[in-house]
Amino acid sequence: MSPPQIKVGILGATGTVGQRFIELLATHPYFSIHALGASARSAGQQYASVVRWKLASPIPDHVRSMVVQECTPGAGGFAECGVVFSGLDADVAGDIEHAFRAADLIVYSNAKNYRRDPLCPLIVPLVNPAHLAIIPHQRQQLGLEKGYIVTNANCSTTGLVVPLAALEKAFGPLETVMVTTLQAISGAGYPGVSSLDIMDNVVPLISGEEDKIEWETNKILGGVTPDNKAFDLHAPKQINVSATCTRVPVIDGHTGCVSVKFTKSPPPSIAEVQKAFREYTCEAQQLGVPSAPAQAIVVHDAPDRPQPRLDKNLHNGACVSVGRIRECPVFDVKFVCLIDNVRLGAATSSIINAEIAVEKGLIV
Amino acid sequence: MSPPQIKVGILGATGTVGQRFIELLATHPYFSIHALGASARSAGQQYASVVRWKLASPIPDHVRSMVVQECTPGAGGFAECGVVFSGLDADVAGDIEHAFRAADLIVYSNAKNYRRDPLCPLIVPLVNPAHLAIIPHQRQQLGLEKGYIVTNANCSTTGLVVPLAALEKAFGPLETVMVTTLQAISGAGYPGVSSLDIMDNVVPLISGEEDKIEWETNKILGGVTPDNKAFDLHAPKQINVSATCTRVPVIDGHTGCVSVKFTKSPPPSIAEVQKAFREYTCEAQQLGVPSAPAQAIVVHDAPDRPQPRLDKNLHNGACVSVGRIRECPVFDVKFVCLIDNVRLGAATSSIINAEIAVEKGLIV
Amino acid sequence: MSPPQIKVGILGATGTVGQRFIELLATHPYFSIHALGASARSAGQQYASVVRWKLASPIPDHVRSMVVQECTPGAGGFAECGVVFSGLDADVAGDIEHAFRAADLIVYSNAKNYRRDPLCPLIVPLVNPAHLAIIPHQRQQLGLEKGYIVTNANCSTTGLVVPLAALEKAFGPLETVMVTTLQAISGAGYPGVSSLDIMDNVVPLISGEEDKIEWETNKILGGVTPDNKAFDLHAPKQINVSATCTRVPVIDGHTGCVSVKFTKSPPPSIAEVQKAFREYTCEAQQLGVPSAPAQAIVVHDAPDRPQPRLDKNLHNGACVSVGRIRECPVFDVKFVCLIDNVRLGAATSSIINAEIAVEKGLIV
Amino acid sequence: MSPPQIKVGILGATGTVGQRFIELLATHPYFSIHALGASARSAGQQYASVVRWKLASPIPDHVRSMVVQECTPGAGGFAECGVVFSGLDADVAGDIEHAFRAADLIVYSNAKNYRRDPLCPLIVPLVNPAHLAIIPHQRQQLGLEKGYIVTNANCSTTGLVVPLAALEKAFGPLETVMVTTLQAISGAGYPGVSSLDIMDNVVPLISGEEDKIEWETNKILGGVTPDNKAFDLHAPKQINVSATCTRVPVIDGHTGCVSVKFTKSPPPSIAEVQKAFREYTCEAQQLGVPSAPAQAIVVHDAPDRPQPRLDKNLHNGACVSVGRIRECPVFDVKFVCLIDNVRLGAATSSIINAEIAVEKGLIV
Repeated sequence: MSPPQIKVGILGATGTVGQRFIELLATHPYFSIHALGASARSAGQQYASVVRWKLASPIPDHVRSMVVQECTPGAGGFAECGVVFSGLDADVAGDIEHAFRAADLIVYSNAKNYRRDPLCPLIVPLVNPAHLAIIPHQRQQLGLEKGYIVTNANCSTTGLVVPLAALEKAFGPLETVMVTTLQAISGAGYPGVSSLDIMDNVVPLISGEEDKIEWETNKILGGVTPDNKAFDLHAPKQINVSATCTRVPVIDGHTGCVSVKFTKSPPPSIAEVQKAFREYTCEAQQLGVPSAPAQAIVVHDAPDRPQPRLDKNLHNGACVSVGRIRECPVFDVKFVCLIDNVRLGAATSSIINAEIAVEKGLIV
Repeated sequence: MSPPQIKVGILGATGTVGQRFIELLATHPYFSIHALGASARSAGQQYASVVRWKLASPIPDHVRSMVVQECTPGAGGFAECGVVFSGLDADVAGDIEHAFRAADLIVYSNAKNYRRDPLCPLIVPLVNPAHLAIIPHQRQQLGLEKGYIVTNANCSTTGLVVPLAALEKAFGPLETVMVTTLQAISGAGYPGVSSLDIMDNVVPLISGEEDKIEWETNKILGGVTPDNKAFDLHAPKQINVSATCTRVPVIDGHTGCVSVKFTKSPPPSIAEVQKAFREYTCEAQQLGVPSAPAQAIVVHDAPDRPQPRLDKNLHNGACVSVGRIRECPVFDVKFVCLIDNVRLGAATSSIINAEIAVEKGLIV
Repeated sequence: MSPPQIKVGILGATGTVGQRFIELLATHPYFSIHALGASARSAGQQYASVVRWKLASPIPDHVRSMVVQECTPGAGGFAECGVVFSGLDADVAGDIEHAFRAADLIVYSNAKNYRRDPLCPLIVPLVNPAHLAIIPHQRQQLGLEKGYIVTNANCSTTGLVVPLAALEKAFGPLETVMVTTLQAISGAGYPGVSSLDIMDNVVPLISGEEDKIEWETNKILGGVTPDNKAFDLHAPKQINVSATCTRVPVIDGHTGCVSVKFTKSPPPSIAEVQKAFREYTCEAQQLGVPSAPAQAIVVHDAPDRPQPRLDKNLHNGACVSVGRIRECPVFDVKFVCLIDNVRLGAATSSIINAEIAVEKGLIV
Repeated sequence: MSPPQIKVGILGATGTVGQRFIELLATHPYFSIHALGASARSAGQQYASVVRWKLASPIPDHVRSMVVQECTPGAGGFAECGVVFSGLDADVAGDIEHAFRAADLIVYSNAKNYRRDPLCPLIVPLVNPAHLAIIPHQRQQLGLEKGYIVTNANCSTTGLVVPLAALEKAFGPLETVMVTTLQAISGAGYPGVSSLDIMDNVVPLISGEEDKIEWETNKILGGVTPDNKAFDLHAPKQINVSATCTRVPVIDGHTGCVSVKFTKSPPPSIAEVQKAFREYTCEAQQLGVPSAPAQAIVVHDAPDRPQPRLDKNLHNGACVSVGRIRECPVFDVKFVCLIDNVRLGAATSSIINAEIAVEKGLIV
């Protein structure tokens, strides 16, 4: 039985991630868009008149004339929202999300600000929705009845940890992960990357990105302590992760070139690894939430796949593609992974996380 | 004192590498273009009428009307050449270069066919011209008075081994190298990569490329046995190299993201590594050959460099750029390197190799 | 009431246009894919094993294992097809389509070979399906009971004539049309345009394209003679059309920059022209065929639209976008138009033409 | 005899055009860089520490440590400059250039602000340096002894008027010109065009650009009145110019697709037009100033040229390329032209204009 329609707000509604939230939520079976928040400059005006809409699908009709609000919990409509999605930039997300939670509202955020907070779950929906178990503790610590913050991971982290989760599920803890990413321009928002910087070019730096991958991976792949009050950060032993992140002239879709070493010895064979990827299933699928992909991981047999332009759309951008699974002369196994950074890497993750929370009674 | 002008031939003169040979040799202080070889289809016609010239500089005037020959040692002009440069494709290079050598001609080849031949030097001119020492043995084994074959390395191997050579020179043998490359379309020749395959895309496979990097590195960084009759392939212990190669929408310039582990413990500091790169000099520079770069390695301090479009032209594309030198959480040091794949990665290497051979009396 | 399911064949099924036919017909309400034709090299093998599939959607499941036939009317399955769609290249389309028609089969072709044939309709489905009236005469001249050929227009012609048809419908004959096109790489098929030719570049020539636009426009915008036996080629006076065609680094979507002069004096105002575009409707819409767009022409108010990447998907690529409608200092009105060259510019046109033919009893 | 070295200042030295001025003036035979002006934010700091240098050649060594000044005529060094080049943005160029002239300094500006000023020459160096004749009048009207302003044209105007000047020189006045441009991203400065706006896309609007082409053409191709006090704006009859301007994913090089109608009847033949382009010479060449190209117009015979990536570098970017010269079904002749928008389209024009002024005694 489908749950009752839940009113939702969107913070940062005019931004790149905000536009994706609108596109994905416009016809959602659980959620209906009720309030849009943006900067004071846009507040009070109709959405279509202030947004620089950059998606290839048009602005949903009923959203065009919605009046944009300031991003304060008291602004029209947010108080009635069962959940507020945040696509805010990191420079403002910290304070605004804090204020919304303090007003006893529920925030599912794509921003980085609370990812390392010991009270806030950092959830990749195809990996660790079990981390939602900490929410009662978060509410209790803050003296809130309803409000809390859940974050999703950095886009390139998300593309990496889904296949890593499949490997750990099948073969036990990983010891070492090396990854080089080739990331799309859309990851930098709009206007984001200047065309003079990236056309016919590679920029071998994305500020802060490598540290995010190296840190977030252990929180996501770790567990919750038995008392549901803390994250174990992949105890007893963290995975040793080394990341190099580059920007390439691709519009959407982050590619990762990965090599991993298992703690298990001897390591699994290539065939076993392929099987583990193919057979990986996750709680989002078991719960049957509407935005969960039919397959969490699509394994490509063609030797030159996955490719961002051709494969990012699989399962509406809600899965991770994996290919070129082969032995590594240095570690155990190498593979290439691909994520749609603007969907599973951003808005789609927040939405699936919230869908799971609905099923678990954490959004009502 | 500059040596006397030496007549040279170019095999595969209408191809992508052949065009670079012509551009670079048109005004060369040692060499003058004397014979052009291409397929039977082009033979007998003027160069300008058969080539699809794709460089941004025009065809040198005196080359336009040169008559193209078939790629046989008896065809007009080759017999008088002091050296023949080969930009042939691998599917024909094996037989043709063999025939030229058998006719007692000297071949400097960009093709892969003889790179693993135990008699043929595989020379990156900024690294191992000492391997030319095997030439007397090659001649002797084949019963030749003058003829021999020297090859240069694969373009992405070349960009990698120059900084690796600097590290081994300063700190002793490397134990492990992991590299992910982001390679330019020009590496595939013309017509090469279809625009429908690479625009707004990454292709995570370049057939055979990873194996070349993993194998060639040890021959290049190894030495010649004391009797000058064999290569030691980095004895007593090979470097463990793992490569992942991708194609990105960049016209010229291969980027490599590298992590290395030294055998030396403790490893050098980041400052020591930077210093080793900056201070690296090579025999080509000491000999002062005309195409040697003023700096073999350019170290970039800007955190987002090197970038292919902006940095490939440094020192006329004859150096390797290195940047982002930093600690690796898994191995010892990570860095990013960049090579102009159509110059130092191809024609320029052959030419510097030949310049060195002139200085050593191996081309007269 | 929907018509009974009609079996269809696809010629050139492995090519760029053929892949679009398969994508669009895989779930079509009128048509079911029954036979796939390709070169002798592919014949006898399963489709998925011979095609180099280049679309972002996967190969439809039931098509993967279909066995490819040679392109002869006697090959398995074609004889039972109610219509055969041809995505063949022009170098083979002439003979093959002739043979299929001679075998009394119905061919809807995207190839150029029969566009100028005085017996064959050249139909842009949003403009001149009335030209189907010549089919009885075509059959009769060739002594056929059922077979005939219908062609659709060149992709860039299609994008131009839809807005021109709207103008002629509202304001009478046009006198002069100047157009410069900026065409996508997908128009050249696969492998088509080399990436080395088009990245960071414009190629100001598409061989034969300007002549197609200049000629086809008058056949399409003209009528059929009262006896339904000939095309009047825009009698009594042809439109004077001048086209310049360029290739730009865009994957899908041809842009046209157009200036027109009316015979009517004074010409309509800009507001009247905008209204004519907005209100333009066509027979395909009136018949309600399944692939007809809700709007034939989408008028963009934003001053920097239409743009190929953002607007090509409107109405599933089955409409033409128009924007920047303004006065021309030289002629009367200037505007910019955009067509999805691989959908309305190719396969979608053939399919809508056939849908209309079904409604008119010309395919049964 | 070469003139004595003249000290020059550069306004807007950190911007895109300013960087080109520095690159081109660093080794100039007439001029030596003496003062660099930028915003107050950069003033007082070393050039290398404040500029985001985006050229593929490094910052000239002696410029790296120059201290940047504010853009006021009293700031250190400007007073000693024989000429000040302005690469300022239009929003500040009006006031600053006015102030410099009022301080009796000579300004050669790339900005648009004074192009339509009836006292200021608008000079394309390969077309109308004769307009310098108005300078005594400009000085006299403003009561200045030395100071004046000369502007160069918009980049796309420049690429158009050079071939138009050749046609008018050979065949008399033009009546009508239609042009569609495909312009490079570098024309918009840095950061300029967002990569999300232009990758895999065409933007069919460049704000204000069409009006510039339509207006500037007549001032440039017109003359000076016999009293040297006014511009005749192509009297007695202006050319009727209609322009459509688009942005395409090209880094450098604006392409124009042009159709022209002569007043002369019958019009010249295609062969005569080709000859007129080939034989066009201009005063900059006759004076032999150092940056003048050997050929003002390069005529391409290959049917698919000129192309921006391959042809922009001809004559160091100081010429205009023309190709595809053919009959127009509507007007008389069509052709394609190409200009390097960052060199002849911007800084190079200012510099050649100043070189000519040196030869004419207007800069001393």
